[in-house]
Amino acid sequence: MKVGIIGGGQLARMLALAGHPLGIETVVLDPAADACAGAVTQQLQGAYDDRDQLKALADAVDVVTYEFENVPEQAVQSLADLASVHPSPNALATGRDRLREKTLLSTTLGIPTAPFATVDSREELESATASIGLPAVLKTRTLGYDGKGQYVLRSTADIDTAWAELGGVPLILEGFVEFEREVSIIAARSRNGEIRCYPLTENVHISGILRFSHCRPGDPQQAAAEDYIGRLLESLDYVGVVALELFQAGDRLLANEMAPRVHNSGHWTIEGAETSQFENHLRAICGLPLGPTTPVGYSAMFNLIGDLPDTAAILAIPGAHLHAYGKAAREGRKVGHITVRAENTTELKRRMEKVRDTLST
Amino acid sequence: MKVGIIGGGQLARMLALAGHPLGIETVVLDPAADACAGAVTQQLQGAYDDRDQLKALADAVDVVTYEFENVPEQAVQSLADLASVHPSPNALATGRDRLREKTLLSTTLGIPTAPFATVDSREELESATASIGLPAVLKTRTLGYDGKGQYVLRSTADIDTAWAELGGVPLILEGFVEFEREVSIIAARSRNGEIRCYPLTENVHISGILRFSHCRPGDPQQAAAEDYIGRLLESLDYVGVVALELFQAGDRLLANEMAPRVHNSGHWTIEGAETSQFENHLRAICGLPLGPTTPVGYSAMFNLIGDLPDTAAILAIPGAHLHAYGKAAREGRKVGHITVRAENTTELKRRMEKVRDTLST
Repeated sequence: MKVGIIGGGQLARMLALAGHPLGIETVVLDPAADACAGAVTQQLQGAYDDRDQLKALADAVDVVTYEFENVPEQAVQSLADLASVHPSPNALATGRDRLREKTLLSTTLGIPTAPFATVDSREELESATASIGLPAVLKTRTLGYDGKGQYVLRSTADIDTAWAELGGVPLILEGFVEFEREVSIIAARSRNGEIRCYPLTENVHISGILRFSHCRPGDPQQAAAEDYIGRLLESLDYVGVVALELFQAGDRLLANEMAPRVHNSGHWTIEGAETSQFENHLRAICGLPLGPTTPVGYSAMFNLIGDLPDTAAILAIPGAHLHAYGKAAREGRKVGHITVRAENTTELKRRMEKVRDTLST
Repeated sequence: MKVGIIGGGQLARMLALAGHPLGIETVVLDPAADACAGAVTQQLQGAYDDRDQLKALADAVDVVTYEFENVPEQAVQSLADLASVHPSPNALATGRDRLREKTLLSTTLGIPTAPFATVDSREELESATASIGLPAVLKTRTLGYDGKGQYVLRSTADIDTAWAELGGVPLILEGFVEFEREVSIIAARSRNGEIRCYPLTENVHISGILRFSHCRPGDPQQAAAEDYIGRLLESLDYVGVVALELFQAGDRLLANEMAPRVHNSGHWTIEGAETSQFENHLRAICGLPLGPTTPVGYSAMFNLIGDLPDTAAILAIPGAHLHAYGKAAREGRKVGHITVRAENTTELKRRMEKVRDTLST
């Protein structure tokens, strides 16, 4: 089996690394000559909408997948005409457009979300703030990531600035959720419809960028999250791994957004689950049986933003597993992560403290 | 850190795969254009004694290591003049020569072994059989692997055939051990002398080729094996991972041979230990702290000889982890392995049976 991946960043890199032992070859398409996945597998260099390279990719592989959802729509469509594509163009289109996504989750599937309204003009922004109430978050419908393309409106006085900041592209206004915690659930669905869910993960974002994920086996909200992600997977006839981010407000979960791909909050599964999200994504899209998503011990993950810490200091911590992405240091850039694992929660806490101490020095 | 590896087979491949997440780049040197490690990392193509390529390798990396011990002695020496080499040329020379190895183990370190004698002539073979007794095993001192270069003498009538078969190169005669089981212990020693041992593994060979390894945490022979491998590591001032194969006869362990490298009987450590033998070898030779060698659940490993089984059938077994080496099928060739893992021994047994059933169909 040979898998093409649109994008050659760290997600593609970890997919490729998961593919090698399975005998699944990978080819990534990325415009950068130094794409970090290119160091561990074959790479085609070209823009995501380079028709010649897309055709070369489709010709070279059995199935095509993505490491990110902001692939140009025409590229996806031209690929789908040439090759087997998972997740489907429809799932990708849903994941990349916040309005379409929220409409599916809330209106079609009856999954609780924050209230939302489409905003295509300054007038619509005013009427939306009136109906949804403030605070609220104005977001671009597409191309937002890591907190970019968002503006929090706290009073009607913010409408001018928000509009000046984001107006001119399709927008969505969402009610601001006062949440107790952010969680995500990751699941895989095979070609024949089997679904496997990983345990819920509790996530901490700072300035819109995920910093820390803590796997929570046995979480009281697991059943609700599995119900929601199951509805989503079925409705899209989805094949592959998907992530659903949720807010917990009181004892309710509100769906925030889906990612039609492997997800940063699932990196802990490499050491912390019987089968990693990367392996299960490949298994799913290649028509192979899914692997168990059961946790192996207790795990938490720290993102490494900007630059890597001292390797020796990290590796001196028992149960700490370093994942360097082979990317140059740059402010705000995800350059690696650390998963820390332990046989019990007390020991995990101790090891997490050690990682925190090392990262802060 | 950048590591050069002499040899581009499956051991180099798994070393390279362990290196990527640590930010350790690898370059392998192998004469084959399709060396299986070349699919996952950089490769220099050339013979193991190609001086130009050895120099290019030494120039490109910080430290050089090996995936097998039968590297031409001159190549090792010329490398050691150019680069930091671990394990040391002395350790390698010991591992590649059965007489030197047995002399170190038995005479110098006082570790029990079968009786042995050097055999360089037909006369020496006769006197050796007389002093050691029969049955005994005549072996080439160097270049033997997977049961090749060996002849079992059961009576004096076998002397002629044995000599005809193997005579003409330096040989060693070893007393035949009636063992209850074969075990191996794998350990890592860091640059600053720290030693970590993995749990004993019970091994089954068929026709001289390892077929099956079963990790045995809490084995009653663990302490003896750790004592022996510790003496070996100290005496060689060894840096990296080493394997020591032993026979158990009654309640005694007899050292059979060492491998100055990562070892097939340690492949289960990828999923079955907190830190794999591949990662610990890289950590050791790069001067990084060693990781815990504690088992994660219970594990066993099946070698895949000749060709790969049906991937879907293997992946349908919970806890079964496939490792395909990317090598073409060929009789007697190691083309992959399966590690099966479980949270308890009862479940492990059940899963092992399923793997056996799948491999036999």
